[in-house]
Amino acid sequence: MLSDIEIAQQNRMEKIQVIADKCGLQPEEIEQYGHYKAKISFDAIRRLENEKDGKLVLVTAITPTPAGEGKSTTSIGLVQALNKIGKNAIATLREPSLGPVFGIKGGAAGGGYAQVVPMDDINLHFTGDMHAITSANNLLSAMIDNHVHQGNELGIDIRQLSWTRVLDMNDRALRNVTVGLGGKVCGFPREDHFMITVASEIMAILCLAKDLEDLKARFGRIVIGCNMQGEPVYVHQLGCEGAMALLMKDAIKPNLVQTLEHTPAIVHGGPFANIAHGCNSIVATKLALKLGDFVVTEAGFGADLGAEKFMDIKCHYAGIYPNAVVIVATLRALKMHGGVAKADLNSENVAAVTAGFVNLKKQIENMRFFGVPVLVAINKFATDTDAEIGELKRLCDEYGVPVELNECWEKGGDGGIDMAKKVAELAESSNPTPKTVYDVNDSIEEKIDKIVQTIYGGVKADFTANAKKQIKQLADWGLDKLPVCMAKTQYSLSDNPALLGAPSGFNITVSDIRVANGAGFIVCRTGDVMVMPGLPKKPAALNMDIEADGTIKGLF
Amino acid sequence: MLSDIEIAQQNRMEKIQVIADKCGLQPEEIEQYGHYKAKISFDAIRRLENEKDGKLVLVTAITPTPAGEGKSTTSIGLVQALNKIGKNAIATLREPSLGPVFGIKGGAAGGGYAQVVPMDDINLHFTGDMHAITSANNLLSAMIDNHVHQGNELGIDIRQLSWTRVLDMNDRALRNVTVGLGGKVCGFPREDHFMITVASEIMAILCLAKDLEDLKARFGRIVIGCNMQGEPVYVHQLGCEGAMALLMKDAIKPNLVQTLEHTPAIVHGGPFANIAHGCNSIVATKLALKLGDFVVTEAGFGADLGAEKFMDIKCHYAGIYPNAVVIVATLRALKMHGGVAKADLNSENVAAVTAGFVNLKKQIENMRFFGVPVLVAINKFATDTDAEIGELKRLCDEYGVPVELNECWEKGGDGGIDMAKKVAELAESSNPTPKTVYDVNDSIEEKIDKIVQTIYGGVKADFTANAKKQIKQLADWGLDKLPVCMAKTQYSLSDNPALLGAPSGFNITVSDIRVANGAGFIVCRTGDVMVMPGLPKKPAALNMDIEADGTIKGLF
Repeated sequence: MLSDIEIAQQNRMEKIQVIADKCGLQPEEIEQYGHYKAKISFDAIRRLENEKDGKLVLVTAITPTPAGEGKSTTSIGLVQALNKIGKNAIATLREPSLGPVFGIKGGAAGGGYAQVVPMDDINLHFTGDMHAITSANNLLSAMIDNHVHQGNELGIDIRQLSWTRVLDMNDRALRNVTVGLGGKVCGFPREDHFMITVASEIMAILCLAKDLEDLKARFGRIVIGCNMQGEPVYVHQLGCEGAMALLMKDAIKPNLVQTLEHTPAIVHGGPFANIAHGCNSIVATKLALKLGDFVVTEAGFGADLGAEKFMDIKCHYAGIYPNAVVIVATLRALKMHGGVAKADLNSENVAAVTAGFVNLKKQIENMRFFGVPVLVAINKFATDTDAEIGELKRLCDEYGVPVELNECWEKGGDGGIDMAKKVAELAESSNPTPKTVYDVNDSIEEKIDKIVQTIYGGVKADFTANAKKQIKQLADWGLDKLPVCMAKTQYSLSDNPALLGAPSGFNITVSDIRVANGAGFIVCRTGDVMVMPGLPKKPAALNMDIEADGTIKGLF
Repeated sequence: MLSDIEIAQQNRMEKIQVIADKCGLQPEEIEQYGHYKAKISFDAIRRLENEKDGKLVLVTAITPTPAGEGKSTTSIGLVQALNKIGKNAIATLREPSLGPVFGIKGGAAGGGYAQVVPMDDINLHFTGDMHAITSANNLLSAMIDNHVHQGNELGIDIRQLSWTRVLDMNDRALRNVTVGLGGKVCGFPREDHFMITVASEIMAILCLAKDLEDLKARFGRIVIGCNMQGEPVYVHQLGCEGAMALLMKDAIKPNLVQTLEHTPAIVHGGPFANIAHGCNSIVATKLALKLGDFVVTEAGFGADLGAEKFMDIKCHYAGIYPNAVVIVATLRALKMHGGVAKADLNSENVAAVTAGFVNLKKQIENMRFFGVPVLVAINKFATDTDAEIGELKRLCDEYGVPVELNECWEKGGDGGIDMAKKVAELAESSNPTPKTVYDVNDSIEEKIDKIVQTIYGGVKADFTANAKKQIKQLADWGLDKLPVCMAKTQYSLSDNPALLGAPSGFNITVSDIRVANGAGFIVCRTGDVMVMPGLPKKPAALNMDIEADGTIKGLF
């Protein structure tokens, strides 16, 4: 089997105008970025405003394990397969972050014969959205420090700033820094932190804003910290939301690319799936619904985290709702949930599949809570045995959930024909009534408790003294009537990454509560959340190269 | 008179394909970035390799004053005027830095009716070159800290790192920082600094590299600091020059835009004019020479700094040489050199023009040293009186240098017809033999002394103890046989910004000597050089806005 970059390089892409034409966009409605990428203008969005929406399919997964699930590969494979069976289907996906490319991952745009291309560009600077976010984020930081330096009219308390700088790089040395050293001309020294760009609230805002005006209004509502009286300080008080929006004037336009089989894909926005909501932009998904009869989109991590936030945050703000949900599972991951160590995954173990099914079952239950029809997609690996696959199918049948094999990684769209047929059937025949886990007007504690009970299968949330203080502050500020965004380990339904399967009887501990008021949600952290990754001992960067003729190596 | 952004917005641009076609580029040889910007592929560069070169015109200036000179406006106006008189002329210019846009400047792409457009995009993210440089620079920083953290095989001395991080933002709080705080998982704490992106050696390399291969080789040669034995540590020892080059794969392609009069302009690269050489990329200038019969390019600051480095660094590496030099002067600036305070510049003062002419005369002399025919272009301001203009013309006639009025700011190309005719005449009839101020094999002290004596009109350079130590180190390392890049105040021919006119009998003090070994020059600092600007009390960002319909405000 060839590597992802080799497959991508062998693929003969269509010019992006051809792809645009395929999905009904007019030539003037796209702005090309090279021959194979384009931004879609808001003229198109306005022209299509009153068109009927297509059917929305959400791809989510069981609780992730180190064995991998292949959610993006499934989403891309599914949209390829839907096109193979004659459906007009479009994928909307998240943009990968540049930083991790140089660390371990080496790239992220699907895999095998289910990729979006040009994968090299998508994994590098793409159309510059990440850089625009970095600039807007750091302009705000510079404006804050400058405001303090130039007299601090707003009385900003530099000991209580929650706004941090960002960089799109895996760089542990920037996690904790002291800025403003060097004496009077360099401002006031203070503690600061750099997060990776995708963790910026600017990214979450980009993905939740309706349009440029909404984007600017949300920038204005960002809380950067407190003043000396303990009152929140908003960006509109600093007056730079206009400049920040100006920096984002192109970033807010969705990006058009294609799959290896030349089906349109809109790749736009990629917020963290822990401290943010982990879904591509609302602008992209809503536009795709106007362009396609079927739209396949995805949410980060497992269904307990990504899909819950998709429903309670993204759908809440977008006024959309999925017609079907695909839950991606692998036999390898289920075997890990059933107690098998990573090293032993290559051996057949039917009993472990049976045992690990509890995790899949719980995630199916979670999606059924939302009243949406569910399909289980088995992302097939070469090591899967017929007996294991048979057992998983039997368990799904027994539980009354449709299940299909997904071999798109190996075969492209042809590997997902049955899956596509079933998805199309489910989505076409469903029209679910939107449902949420909690009411945004519940107290923060109630909202979290409802998620723990309904989705995680736990008892309740415990709050640290710090979290309680923060909840009181947000209530005092009147900023608590927003959806909550859970930042929890993705490796367990609980907040303990060691508890695989479907644990029960547990409490989760909430240690930190902050408002992302521009984005419009409250971030609830349970345990440590890494917002600035580091590089490994042998970074992927060491294997990367570009030759004189432009041949790229080491992106995979 | 309308503001620059208003003029730019009223202008009806040609589609970039039309501009590409005008300068003989084939449709497949450009990669569009939106409708009005494009990258030119290396296929075009290779196709044109054996074509005859056009005539090269360098635009430089008298010693800058706070009154302003309008070098870019003159370059753009001149190229517009050359096209008006039927010449196939192309401008090659520097890309503006994003950071200063939000500070005082608000934008930089010419002015009035002599601008390159789309000025908003050029001033914001443009085609992403600055962001690519930021990424490549900071990837190297992350790789250095990671190397130290993961065992420090190379024995890098974190007390002696010369490589710093960069950000394209005016942000004084980042001038001096402590990174790596937070304990063992966050690496080793150390002092670091952020420069503005245009000050990065990566930018200088981009502008001096011949092609992608040369770019990568130069990245490999960068010296990042010393090991514990005091030996230089090179990027190729870290092994990330390939990944850095990969990040720059599009940035190295020159950018095509247009002037307000639809003449082609290549805007590519914009290194600092103090710690770097201050000229657009060699790739851009050499390509333009293949495409145009005349190429107008510019160098930063006054002729003593920018033009000297253009000759001794850019021409040295590119194997090109100008056929004519235009020295931009304004009566306002000459009056300041003649002793008038900024507040009094609106009053007629012929005597001050006479007195201030010494500066222009010295800069003409400097350019004559290189054996290139010189034209003085008077960039006309509304406050200039006929008597003042008459006096300057008389002085130029007396000195035997041609002089023409430049009214392009107000009238576009039509305001520079006489200037264009004279420039074309000078350039067409000249074929100067390349000359340099020093031999690169001179010692560092000799090279600097020659510049001080030949160009600045001073006696010699004094070296601080620190500078002497650094010179010895570079000699020991065998890295001293490179051109020198003087980082001196732009406001005086001497190193004292208060000495206007044409001072003499002075020494300059060199306090810091570093090698930019990838770029291929030795940076010699005299006095403080600001490599990370700050924001003013009322940053331009406060006036910037973008409305729902996309109308931009506050870029000027």
